[in-house]
Amino acid sequence: MVNEDAKKVWAYIDEHEEEYIDLLKKYCAQPSVSAQNWGMREMAEMIRQTITELGGNGTLIETGGNPFVYGMIDNGAERTLTLYNHYDVVPPEPYEQWNTPPFEPTIIDGRLYARGSSDNKGSLLSRYIAVDAYQKVLGKLPINIKFVAEGEEEIGSPHLMDFIRDNPEKIQSDGIIWEGGSKVVNGPLVVHMGVKGVTTFEIVCKEPKNHSNPVWRLIWALNSMKNADDYITVDHFDDSIAPLTEYERNFVLNNDYDEEAMKKMNGIDHFVRDLTGNALKEKLYTEPSMNIQGLYFREIDPVTGMPKSAAVKMDIRTVPNQEPEELMRQLRNHLDAHGFEDLEIIEGHSTLPYRGKPDSLLAKAVIKDVAEVYGMPADVHLMIPGSCGMARVVKATGIPIVHYGCMDDASRAHAPNESVDLDHYIKGAKLSVLVFQNFATMD
Amino acid sequence: MVNEDAKKVWAYIDEHEEEYIDLLKKYCAQPSVSAQNWGMREMAEMIRQTITELGGNGTLIETGGNPFVYGMIDNGAERTLTLYNHYDVVPPEPYEQWNTPPFEPTIIDGRLYARGSSDNKGSLLSRYIAVDAYQKVLGKLPINIKFVAEGEEEIGSPHLMDFIRDNPEKIQSDGIIWEGGSKVVNGPLVVHMGVKGVTTFEIVCKEPKNHSNPVWRLIWALNSMKNADDYITVDHFDDSIAPLTEYERNFVLNNDYDEEAMKKMNGIDHFVRDLTGNALKEKLYTEPSMNIQGLYFREIDPVTGMPKSAAVKMDIRTVPNQEPEELMRQLRNHLDAHGFEDLEIIEGHSTLPYRGKPDSLLAKAVIKDVAEVYGMPADVHLMIPGSCGMARVVKATGIPIVHYGCMDDASRAHAPNESVDLDHYIKGAKLSVLVFQNFATMD
Repeated sequence: MVNEDAKKVWAYIDEHEEEYIDLLKKYCAQPSVSAQNWGMREMAEMIRQTITELGGNGTLIETGGNPFVYGMIDNGAERTLTLYNHYDVVPPEPYEQWNTPPFEPTIIDGRLYARGSSDNKGSLLSRYIAVDAYQKVLGKLPINIKFVAEGEEEIGSPHLMDFIRDNPEKIQSDGIIWEGGSKVVNGPLVVHMGVKGVTTFEIVCKEPKNHSNPVWRLIWALNSMKNADDYITVDHFDDSIAPLTEYERNFVLNNDYDEEAMKKMNGIDHFVRDLTGNALKEKLYTEPSMNIQGLYFREIDPVTGMPKSAAVKMDIRTVPNQEPEELMRQLRNHLDAHGFEDLEIIEGHSTLPYRGKPDSLLAKAVIKDVAEVYGMPADVHLMIPGSCGMARVVKATGIPIVHYGCMDDASRAHAPNESVDLDHYIKGAKLSVLVFQNFATMD
Repeated sequence: MVNEDAKKVWAYIDEHEEEYIDLLKKYCAQPSVSAQNWGMREMAEMIRQTITELGGNGTLIETGGNPFVYGMIDNGAERTLTLYNHYDVVPPEPYEQWNTPPFEPTIIDGRLYARGSSDNKGSLLSRYIAVDAYQKVLGKLPINIKFVAEGEEEIGSPHLMDFIRDNPEKIQSDGIIWEGGSKVVNGPLVVHMGVKGVTTFEIVCKEPKNHSNPVWRLIWALNSMKNADDYITVDHFDDSIAPLTEYERNFVLNNDYDEEAMKKMNGIDHFVRDLTGNALKEKLYTEPSMNIQGLYFREIDPVTGMPKSAAVKMDIRTVPNQEPEELMRQLRNHLDAHGFEDLEIIEGHSTLPYRGKPDSLLAKAVIKDVAEVYGMPADVHLMIPGSCGMARVVKATGIPIVHYGCMDDASRAHAPNESVDLDHYIKGAKLSVLVFQNFATMD
């Protein structure tokens, strides 16, 4: 049930919809491409100003890269909520695949098209305008708010852990709303509180031990690592996988998973191994995946034209409690045991996996009233297949994290013609109003 | 034993060595890159003129591409020898890897460095200057000579069969000395009279039937096609391989194969499967090889960054009597039988394999006196691992073909810093003098 206070705030949001959309347009018109160091200071300043206008005393925190923007609205409330977002976007290239210029926000059929519109400026602002409307109508939030916006998320958040280490008081809170969050078009809002990890590496064949083509040795090694049923077959690779707890298992099995929507979104007519139902849901939370990102020749013999050395770039999407170092040791042992001692492993970067806690106060505050805004309950996940630095933050701080926001499965984040559904943008703000209330009052 | 006539011709060659090397420099200074249509007419004209100066009445024969240069010295002799060469070269790129400019012939330590110096201008001229010296000293060759030089060998000889079909009298002869031919540095001259065939193709995975990554499906399919002992395991792929005849088997097993030289040349310390001796020699003549030229993503999903379709480029080096069409049928059946019906095969181009006839008059005429010139007998092969259009010509004409010439295993044909050993260039001419004599007189 939406109470009278919230109804008044919602009415204000509806009345000021045009103004809030104009603010999103202004944000999206400002390039902020971290990989190209394009517009970062201008964008940080724009956010600092918005936070200050909300009463949060916006400040730039330097960490050696793009600054963190920080602010706090301290109402002396019992509970504090952190809004973590990022203000950088991925590069707009290739330009020729955009139907409208990436930094000229354009509304077509209720969607705003621009680089960054869904990832993450739409979600960032939908949270900020919820704060704005709540304060304009009711004077004061029932919670304290911390704003943290970083400018290096799209390049791997290289200073995030430094920021947390050097400014523990700036992240300390009772819950963090993380950047991102999704929705199925014409379907439920997706709320999640965990992510798979990722471990990247290369396998290199420099001098094939039997002098066959190095590419063939990589083929044979790869074949030993994953079978035609799509199971990873690296020896002992599954040893450290944490089974679902009874609580998690009940949660997963009781949760709806919209198989038809996922098939449609991915353009497929069935899942791997024809999985459906509970088996499909369990796979998502307990099975890593292993991907080939590319296979390339490192050195070509100029006389014969044959490859002298070759390499394959790979990643593993991990589940708890797979540790990158242990996985790389197991892979080394596997290759040795299967006659591939001559292949080298070059480790890449890693993020950790995390299965979230749907019984946290924050999770309950988010999930409770989703149907009031969206007309149907949320699709709640312990973990999604994507990866980000979230698990590091949870591990370092112990603070529960939840993702919900204004992207949907038509948003094309990171791709040409990125967009955000403006109705979803406004609804996201309305949901946040309820989240603030619930977070203040729930047990 | 070198007879008095030949000794006189050899002496003439020695006296005019500088002039013959200058001619080679002039030829190598003229670019003739068929793939870039660079200098082709100028080069053809240069050869036409040389053939005419030799008394061969050089003429250009048009076939729709670069012209064939043809000429004949008709001495009314019993036997006719065709000298088949090509005047085109591969592109010089990458320029930055050349120590000297590719079209400024430069002599360093007895080797002439230039694009085309070994493939094929050195061998072409060593044959032509043998004709020149023989005629200058003895007035008349004991055989008739046909000169055929084409300008499209490096782009697959697209008009060679047209030339033979339209001008059967211009190739008709008792033997053909083919372009190419090699020598082991500080080792024997390599004489061969056959080549492996090549069949190129791609395997494409557009829509993986179990929705795993298309690259993985290619890995699994490839793994079913060749095992870790480097044996091709495509079902029935060996069915059509012609066993060695008793004659061929004796020839192969009695022939020396300089394993140490080959290991040194290829920078390896042992052969596949640790093969040595007769088993190694038999492999060369009876076992095809299958190579991966590259694996690439055809289409990337712009949202997930994952490959949606992928392909692998491959080739098979074939042995008699493997027919390209039959191999592709067998590969299709193999993929279907192993659960890869969803993979497509795109056929590429093919040349045929051919095991030569060392008992032909021409072969005997070439092999007989090699030791007189090089101090050791020739290393004679029924077939080499390289491929060219030769088998088509043999099949169409029935004329025996032999390769011997002025390349060696330091020549780096097709690579930067291509070179020819000038001592080998002169010796090649001297050997040809003996070949002319033998070809005229042997039974």
